[in-house]
Amino acid sequence: MADGFEQMWSDLAPVGRSAATGGYFRQPWDSAEEELRAWFAEQAAARGLVLETDALGNQVAWWRPEPVPGQTEILGVLTGSHLDSVLDGGAYDGPLGVVSAFAAVDRLRERGVEPGRAIGISAFREEEGSRFGLACLGSRLASGSVAWADVEGLRDRKGVALGDVTGEPDAGAGGVLADVGCFVELHVEQGRALVDRGAPVGLASGIWPHGRWRFDFTGRADHAGTTRMEDRADPMLTYAMTVLAANKQARLTTGSTDGEGRATFGRVDVRPNGTNAVPSAVTAWLDARADSDEALQAMVAAIERQAGDRAGRDRTEVVVTAESVSGPVEFSPDLAARINAGRDWPVLPTQAGHDAGILSAAGHPSAMLFVRNPTGVSHSPAESAEMADCLAGVEALADALTELAG
Amino acid sequence: MADGFEQMWSDLAPVGRSAATGGYFRQPWDSAEEELRAWFAEQAAARGLVLETDALGNQVAWWRPEPVPGQTEILGVLTGSHLDSVLDGGAYDGPLGVVSAFAAVDRLRERGVEPGRAIGISAFREEEGSRFGLACLGSRLASGSVAWADVEGLRDRKGVALGDVTGEPDAGAGGVLADVGCFVELHVEQGRALVDRGAPVGLASGIWPHGRWRFDFTGRADHAGTTRMEDRADPMLTYAMTVLAANKQARLTTGSTDGEGRATFGRVDVRPNGTNAVPSAVTAWLDARADSDEALQAMVAAIERQAGDRAGRDRTEVVVTAESVSGPVEFSPDLAARINAGRDWPVLPTQAGHDAGILSAAGHPSAMLFVRNPTGVSHSPAESAEMADCLAGVEALADALTELAG
Repeated sequence: MADGFEQMWSDLAPVGRSAATGGYFRQPWDSAEEELRAWFAEQAAARGLVLETDALGNQVAWWRPEPVPGQTEILGVLTGSHLDSVLDGGAYDGPLGVVSAFAAVDRLRERGVEPGRAIGISAFREEEGSRFGLACLGSRLASGSVAWADVEGLRDRKGVALGDVTGEPDAGAGGVLADVGCFVELHVEQGRALVDRGAPVGLASGIWPHGRWRFDFTGRADHAGTTRMEDRADPMLTYAMTVLAANKQARLTTGSTDGEGRATFGRVDVRPNGTNAVPSAVTAWLDARADSDEALQAMVAAIERQAGDRAGRDRTEVVVTAESVSGPVEFSPDLAARINAGRDWPVLPTQAGHDAGILSAAGHPSAMLFVRNPTGVSHSPAESAEMADCLAGVEALADALTELAG
Repeated sequence: MADGFEQMWSDLAPVGRSAATGGYFRQPWDSAEEELRAWFAEQAAARGLVLETDALGNQVAWWRPEPVPGQTEILGVLTGSHLDSVLDGGAYDGPLGVVSAFAAVDRLRERGVEPGRAIGISAFREEEGSRFGLACLGSRLASGSVAWADVEGLRDRKGVALGDVTGEPDAGAGGVLADVGCFVELHVEQGRALVDRGAPVGLASGIWPHGRWRFDFTGRADHAGTTRMEDRADPMLTYAMTVLAANKQARLTTGSTDGEGRATFGRVDVRPNGTNAVPSAVTAWLDARADSDEALQAMVAAIERQAGDRAGRDRTEVVVTAESVSGPVEFSPDLAARINAGRDWPVLPTQAGHDAGILSAAGHPSAMLFVRNPTGVSHSPAESAEMADCLAGVEALADALTELAG
């Protein structure tokens, strides 16, 4: 007999959890994430689902209806999310959607639903981009949104290339998405909109355009004691100014009448990173998002311009490279209307990228369900959801699957 | 027969050198530095010097005169420097003093000098503090300037404790400095004062007070996309403002009528250091120096105050810990006068800490010789010296040893 939601949730709780911070380290191709993938295979097997896996390690477990003689095959309904986490992340971002998918299949069976279409449960790999730097890597490859040749050379922090840890997955007709029509992803909310509205569950309207830009600041290494301040070319100064400029620009974008934006420098690598040496180079990554393409481009351009101006004063150089930029996503209004019929769940935009955004852009009508997050905090050990809300999410997902595949 | 200066220099050139940057990575208790220590032992053996080593790995090679019957032992003259480097450092900082010491002993023997006192050549370990964070660790321990109990728990970047890689060296009467009277350290200049004066060699007057302060900035991890700018507690912002404040305060100190200062943030660690996460914590190290204790304390206090003010606005916290603070050093005027008699070499202050500063404070009269550095750059692959100036340094050191030990 398959485990219930609470049992599955407590089984996953210790996997990849840091005793020091309480946060999760579930990076792809590392032991904790491999354990989660084995757990996924066990859950599929326990329910008699047929597991498909591609070379990258994307997993889809299928519940296929008995074939009707003479009927041509119709495309299935996919649900699920991802199992990997950011560095020191929360428990819910990703796994909540996968566990809820298994629990929703259990609910359909308890209800005696005989689906007219196949229902698949997915776990896409490297959704967070925490290892190779490209978010939604698994769904991008499986859907053919990026070519293998463009990503196989991506390297992790230790210099290991993606192509060295994995192979090229088949995309499109030959891959794990070959039988997929539409996609419904359940996810913990990453803000407090549902708290404000007093609703346990909501629907997504779309995803803001967003991207990652790498800033390479270079200067000249020098002795921190003997080099006069006026003789330096210190890239840390240019970086520091750029951090403050990014924050200011995001606030200005948000404060304007027709825009809203976010800009964050959360990752920085310094060379040589020694206390008594002026750095030779600082590399940092800007995460930027806005509610329109125009606002995003204007915001990033302003940050780049201010970085360049400061570099001129610091006698350093700055080169900006767009590592990944995703345009705006509007989820299928038709799908959302069918799921929300007679319910009136709040419909919200999200600032976060998701596999559902990738599949939507690749031609699979997609929808997202959000589960209320009391703290509003995400990508952090403080991320949370009440058990009652999680179970309401399972019911909502089971209802959606009944509607779409019943 | 012992190698000449140029042969020794070319033998050391490839050890620990990065092909990518041309800089040196000679961190203590790592393979390149162990190779340098083996080289030191070989050079001592080739010259018939008696090698003493303590538990930390400080090395002293002694040339002892034949004992005169009935004469009480008199203290020896020590020369030398260190073999370790900062991360991605230059070739000269440290090794120039050690190689010049061996070459100077060769010159004394060529001149037929029969020293009346023992002459020791030293290589103190972890002078740069690039592994365990405390500069001049070897000379501090050997001289008893710090207690083993206060440093054995120091950890490197990987969390390894000093006490796990080495033992407690004997200090004072029982250690490698037991027979040492005075100390003369030759070092590449770390600025352009000798270039400006057109002199290949100079003498140090003293060392500025200086230190390292750790700044622990803490905030709250959050999703870089979904968390509104005004809801964040982002410690990267507080860090960035503090970097700019440190630069400004050092310039203000230098611009004032009665002071001169340096302030640098060259090392920073971010947690979790992920592109799409607002950091939970940023730890950074301030290297600060000034030409008086008063100026140094005022400068650091101003930086701390501005960091604290900004933390209040960012809803973050900052805690500042002094990891090591060294007071001003005035080298022995008597020793300098004897070395400089009839020569008129320029006499300069230095902003950099040295083992000579530690030994001086521990009661060993000390002097430093500087060799001209055309770039003025140090702690960088660009650090350099002309061979003719290096050989002039060897002659100067041989003259000094003749004067002090002859």
